[in-house]
Amino acid sequence: MSDYLSIKEQDKQYVLHSWAKQGSFNPKVIAKAEGVCFWDDAGNRYFDMSSQLVYVNVGHQHPKVLKAFQEIGTYPLAGPSFATKPKSDLSQRIIELAPSNMAKVFYTSGGAEANDHAVKIARMVSGRYKIFSRYRSYHGATFGAGNLTGESRRFAAEPGLPGFVKFEVPYLYREVIDFDSEEAATAYYLGKLRNQILYEGSDTIAAIFIEPIPGSNGVLIPPKGYLEGVRALCDEFGILMICDEVMTGFGRTGKGFAVDHYDFKPDIMTFAKGVTSGYAPLGGVIISEDISRFFDENVLMTGLTYSGHTMCTQIGVANLEVYEEENIFENAEKMGILLKQRLEKLLTFPSIGEIRSIGLFAGVELVKDKATKEPIIQYGLDYGKDPVGLMNKFISMLSANGFYTYSHESTVIIAPPLIITEEQINEAMDIFESTLKQFEKEGLFPEETLSV
Amino acid sequence: MSDYLSIKEQDKQYVLHSWAKQGSFNPKVIAKAEGVCFWDDAGNRYFDMSSQLVYVNVGHQHPKVLKAFQEIGTYPLAGPSFATKPKSDLSQRIIELAPSNMAKVFYTSGGAEANDHAVKIARMVSGRYKIFSRYRSYHGATFGAGNLTGESRRFAAEPGLPGFVKFEVPYLYREVIDFDSEEAATAYYLGKLRNQILYEGSDTIAAIFIEPIPGSNGVLIPPKGYLEGVRALCDEFGILMICDEVMTGFGRTGKGFAVDHYDFKPDIMTFAKGVTSGYAPLGGVIISEDISRFFDENVLMTGLTYSGHTMCTQIGVANLEVYEEENIFENAEKMGILLKQRLEKLLTFPSIGEIRSIGLFAGVELVKDKATKEPIIQYGLDYGKDPVGLMNKFISMLSANGFYTYSHESTVIIAPPLIITEEQINEAMDIFESTLKQFEKEGLFPEETLSV
Repeated sequence: MSDYLSIKEQDKQYVLHSWAKQGSFNPKVIAKAEGVCFWDDAGNRYFDMSSQLVYVNVGHQHPKVLKAFQEIGTYPLAGPSFATKPKSDLSQRIIELAPSNMAKVFYTSGGAEANDHAVKIARMVSGRYKIFSRYRSYHGATFGAGNLTGESRRFAAEPGLPGFVKFEVPYLYREVIDFDSEEAATAYYLGKLRNQILYEGSDTIAAIFIEPIPGSNGVLIPPKGYLEGVRALCDEFGILMICDEVMTGFGRTGKGFAVDHYDFKPDIMTFAKGVTSGYAPLGGVIISEDISRFFDENVLMTGLTYSGHTMCTQIGVANLEVYEEENIFENAEKMGILLKQRLEKLLTFPSIGEIRSIGLFAGVELVKDKATKEPIIQYGLDYGKDPVGLMNKFISMLSANGFYTYSHESTVIIAPPLIITEEQINEAMDIFESTLKQFEKEGLFPEETLSV
Repeated sequence: MSDYLSIKEQDKQYVLHSWAKQGSFNPKVIAKAEGVCFWDDAGNRYFDMSSQLVYVNVGHQHPKVLKAFQEIGTYPLAGPSFATKPKSDLSQRIIELAPSNMAKVFYTSGGAEANDHAVKIARMVSGRYKIFSRYRSYHGATFGAGNLTGESRRFAAEPGLPGFVKFEVPYLYREVIDFDSEEAATAYYLGKLRNQILYEGSDTIAAIFIEPIPGSNGVLIPPKGYLEGVRALCDEFGILMICDEVMTGFGRTGKGFAVDHYDFKPDIMTFAKGVTSGYAPLGGVIISEDISRFFDENVLMTGLTYSGHTMCTQIGVANLEVYEEENIFENAEKMGILLKQRLEKLLTFPSIGEIRSIGLFAGVELVKDKATKEPIIQYGLDYGKDPVGLMNKFISMLSANGFYTYSHESTVIIAPPLIITEEQINEAMDIFESTLKQFEKEGLFPEETLSV
């Protein structure tokens, strides 16, 4: 154990951790991991129900991906201007998996960089500078991605880029208006968006940037016809439609990409996480045939030292082979149905306001009161600002009971590795249910408990 | 060969390449690489005299680094909030190598992300928003790094971030004023900078961001006392000094960091490339003890999925071990002296205006006319805008003769792997010299050649 203690001490002394107050931050040491689980240095097992940060799609320590690392060196390391076998192969595989209008891949090392570059590409192609994105979105922490982001984490990237305009995301559970139907909601949101496009000057708008299903902000499934309607508005005004598939890409929702659930094609897509299951940092921008033709004649005025990194693309190829060989996306779809059934049972709990899920991508939204929908944590108080800390308490209780994940606002993200089995879903969700009972009793409704 | 043809065809069909017009871009295929050389698919050997993009410090296919890939899987993959042995070990090693005031590392996947995050950190710590950086600097292509950048590649990140202010870099060879001494130049640049700080409002300025030795823009060695003077101005006005060591870090200049050649300590440093010799995408921000204390009590409002990536930090550890075990920095210093001697001989050529070098980091600046210093390419015409294309021609001739590197404006970058030997320097520089003769004859002064 002393070895792991020293790892932790070293970490606390030398490492600056994301989204945390360092003085009170106490990192866990992972000692072992396999499949959908990991173990800490005290031997406690955890179901990794967020796939770390929604990326370990093929599971921990996948033998085929680890084997691919043993073959690193087969292809020499080459800068971005060279052609290499892994980069060529991965690119063809990605384009074959993407919607049929997609043509080429620009590589980055992660999702934030991908979103920054998608913005640059959209501005180059369109000659316009405004970029629309949505409230309650998360696109990353570099300055482009940070300014696309529509929640409180964007403030750290401000004062921000000019021309970044926000519009509302359909989030029916917390909408001020009560709609009679999904179609009515769609008509409302599209009508408001159309007005805002006109108010901002349609011919100043380069792109509309959306997560088809916002992930970090709580797995917000769009109402019927909404995404197709955004596409129609883009077509009407000559605006590029960019879909951020960083979380949703590569099987998370039970299909190759989230857009495959709908009847439209974006002009540009960004990806990361699932392309390598996080075994190597890789992301990218997928562009349509039309945009590809533009860059045949015009210089792509951007670049990155590690664009199309030989080793990372090699790991990407191995990872995509695993998806195919083990029918991972099909498993995600099938297990997603089981997960949804388990989640729907939670609605009988007084603290469960809404559950939203597609494939193995779910959000469980907690409330203090079902009737008023009072959230557990007020908007904007994540990241150390909440004086009460109930959501942190719930996440810690889950973790202590062996269910590892994270939350945003009042929503707990559930996004296990895509290789999860029925038995594992049930075992993990049993933990979730019993922890929820415990949380309601000890954390959320203590007075009521006392009065019983 | 047909295998490599197909790699190239796949590449041309599916890959979007940095800084290029794709239609006319013809990628080279690397078939083999070893040490300071690589070979294309036709069997031609090239000295890699730019270490790809100034990162393959330990040389191609280094056995110890490749062996480290075989041990990937020893430590399980963990998200940024966990402590892992590779991350802890690498962080301690980096802090021990950095100036004595440095305390902690925030990890990114590359230099651009590192610079974006350094800006965010400086703004958080200072509560101020303006960021000074220099003309003729290159800091990367994300929006933060792109707006820090002081040359034409930044225009693709515009309209840009508010509060990003540019000041002049000491570039004595092309300065309008003739200085009597380096000291006089330093006094001039510091005086101008001090005025600009006052004009912009000293208490609005979060940080002054500089490459101690601007790399991409031609290895511009600062005049004596300049960097120390910038530090003094930062102290006078409570401004943070941030040094971008993405190219210069990890032995490139013959010492751990470029700042080690001078008598000052920055508050923040950014790094990438040399930390892994590019074998895995990794970068980061090193912060001082003072800044570290700030984040003990305040939330670090930023983060990245792959911050402190387990595999990448593991490769970083192996790479840093190679530096130590093989005395790589000492070799860079020693070979740097030899390289400088060879470069100084070039000054007899009519087309060589200036040579600048430190360690294995050199710029060879070409001119059309030594007296007028007329450049080979006008400012801002890199990246497809030069109708004449003489610099491209020279770089192509070098490559055809087996000397692989790149240029920016009229300066050729020479930055070979740090393991290069005297014999290899001489062999490569022989190629450079004979190619330069050929270029002067065929490309630069063809009429004069005809009149001989």
